[in-house]
Amino acid sequence: MSVFEAQETVALSIDEVFALSRRVLTGAGLSVPHAEAVARAITAGERDECASHGLYRLPGCVMTIRSGKLSLDAEPVVEDASPALVRADARHGYSLLAFERAAPLLAQKAKAVGVAALVINNCFHFSALWPEIEQLTEMGVAALAMTPSHSWVAPAGGRKGLLGTNPIAFGWPRPGPYPYVFDFATSAIARGDMALHDIAGKLIPEGWGVDAEGRPTTNARAALDGAMLTFGGHKGSALSTMIELMAGPLIGDLTSRESMAFDDGAKAAPMHGELILAFDPAIMGGGDAEANAARAEALFAAFADQGARLPSQRRYKARARSLKHGVRTPKVLYDQIQALGF
Amino acid sequence: MSVFEAQETVALSIDEVFALSRRVLTGAGLSVPHAEAVARAITAGERDECASHGLYRLPGCVMTIRSGKLSLDAEPVVEDASPALVRADARHGYSLLAFERAAPLLAQKAKAVGVAALVINNCFHFSALWPEIEQLTEMGVAALAMTPSHSWVAPAGGRKGLLGTNPIAFGWPRPGPYPYVFDFATSAIARGDMALHDIAGKLIPEGWGVDAEGRPTTNARAALDGAMLTFGGHKGSALSTMIELMAGPLIGDLTSRESMAFDDGAKAAPMHGELILAFDPAIMGGGDAEANAARAEALFAAFADQGARLPSQRRYKARARSLKHGVRTPKVLYDQIQALGF
Repeated sequence: MSVFEAQETVALSIDEVFALSRRVLTGAGLSVPHAEAVARAITAGERDECASHGLYRLPGCVMTIRSGKLSLDAEPVVEDASPALVRADARHGYSLLAFERAAPLLAQKAKAVGVAALVINNCFHFSALWPEIEQLTEMGVAALAMTPSHSWVAPAGGRKGLLGTNPIAFGWPRPGPYPYVFDFATSAIARGDMALHDIAGKLIPEGWGVDAEGRPTTNARAALDGAMLTFGGHKGSALSTMIELMAGPLIGDLTSRESMAFDDGAKAAPMHGELILAFDPAIMGGGDAEANAARAEALFAAFADQGARLPSQRRYKARARSLKHGVRTPKVLYDQIQALGF
Repeated sequence: MSVFEAQETVALSIDEVFALSRRVLTGAGLSVPHAEAVARAITAGERDECASHGLYRLPGCVMTIRSGKLSLDAEPVVEDASPALVRADARHGYSLLAFERAAPLLAQKAKAVGVAALVINNCFHFSALWPEIEQLTEMGVAALAMTPSHSWVAPAGGRKGLLGTNPIAFGWPRPGPYPYVFDFATSAIARGDMALHDIAGKLIPEGWGVDAEGRPTTNARAALDGAMLTFGGHKGSALSTMIELMAGPLIGDLTSRESMAFDDGAKAAPMHGELILAFDPAIMGGGDAEANAARAEALFAAFADQGARLPSQRRYKARARSLKHGVRTPKVLYDQIQALGF
């Protein structure tokens, strides 16, 4: 992250990032299957230089674990609910293990009937969606995932937190190691990035947030205490509302506001649901799968032709670099993690 | 539309709008089932004061009919492709009749397995998506629709048309006559609205488009000849790319660029596919459907509490007004339609 550019760093190998994450998480009390699922997501974030979804998340995980609200060892219950629907009850554990346990059945259903949904209920959620999306594209299906969060974001025309940062992520399987993937918060900026600006004492641009009185602000702390804004004006606000509905009431789970009420000041990760849709290009395409895949590749090539970048390219470059040379983590963060005492 | 505010208008009842549309469309050669499906969509647009999807579209329809590319009487072929997939081959006719014929089966499948998809292939498409979304919410399902168009829009970081205006629309059934519905172009502005600015000689804001040399412009004509831009920067561009993939290669149909190549300068409506997903709240919610619906209503109420508007409210107000008093159409447009000679 650019906000850390001038800071002292610690060099770690990818294996060391995973081992550190696993040690802290099991030390804090998480069961091994949960700790390893969470550690895999954190390691992927650190590896891809997504600072706000890397080791930076560990102290927050410990806070969630200590909140007493998270189940530390819940075994997810996966239900084959219909030919097009998988249900995974995370039973108040982290979402990641539930996803890992249910994803193969989701892909299998998509490959059988064309489109299928995975509903994860009652999960604590803090992770980026792209690691899940990439697991699905590796199984050969396109995927769309969304989840609410906490009601930190004001809708267009409003001034108070109501919507979540509500991320949406999409993936399309491609030949070679890297799928087409995007993953973005429907808030103007991810809350983690807003927090990083606050930690670094960096001003935020106008349009990211309003203060507690609903006035525009360039102070990250004031916006964190007030309300964030959506990206893209009323269109981003509408999209965020759709995510609130689809990954909330539609799947029988909490809205961002209800999740925040459930948290009741504990500052744990949001607890709610997640919706993941998977699509099989062979069945949905109804004909020549190879020609359809080539059509997508021609689209991607046309991006390059005019000098436009596909999303995730920065992340994939970082991944190649990290796998070779390891990562560099801010020393202040590393020390904070060591000070947790695990 | 505000660009017509100062203009002379003609008063028409809703029935007159439909009759005029039907007369022009059948006069130009469209079969009665197609003409009536198209006239219903145009009437809905005019009724809801969506000028760019109302009578304004009739001359374009006539141009498409005369292009020789559109089938004037193709009977759509609806296929029950899987427990979660309906396929409708429009056989180079307009999309609307294919949608009307296939929508009940789509809703039926969603109600059986939770989520289902309708793939429309080989259709000419010019209409707003919300009339289709509303047909589905009336059947009690939530719905998400998307379609490419022509490659008029540059991706983020690019300067040449590659993506379509790629609209996305979502609907959620509510008690009472009006569902939650949004329908927006992923371009900064709908192409129809850009064209209305050109006709009215009105400047466009920066960020809507670039000229043929890729330079920012405030001239609607220059942007129509150059490239439009997406809403919401790289996030809007990513979303537009997803629509390009999901309603293109995924469903075995053309991208916006391929559709434009197919048109080959005929200036007919885009010819490609459309993807509509439907979700049954009862099955997807897995439990107490009434409690889940109430949860959504609480979210909507919280919008009103802070003075934020839900999308489509302006449209619903216009609808109530139009149903009572009829509509007022710009005389210049009315004369242009009469001059078509049908």
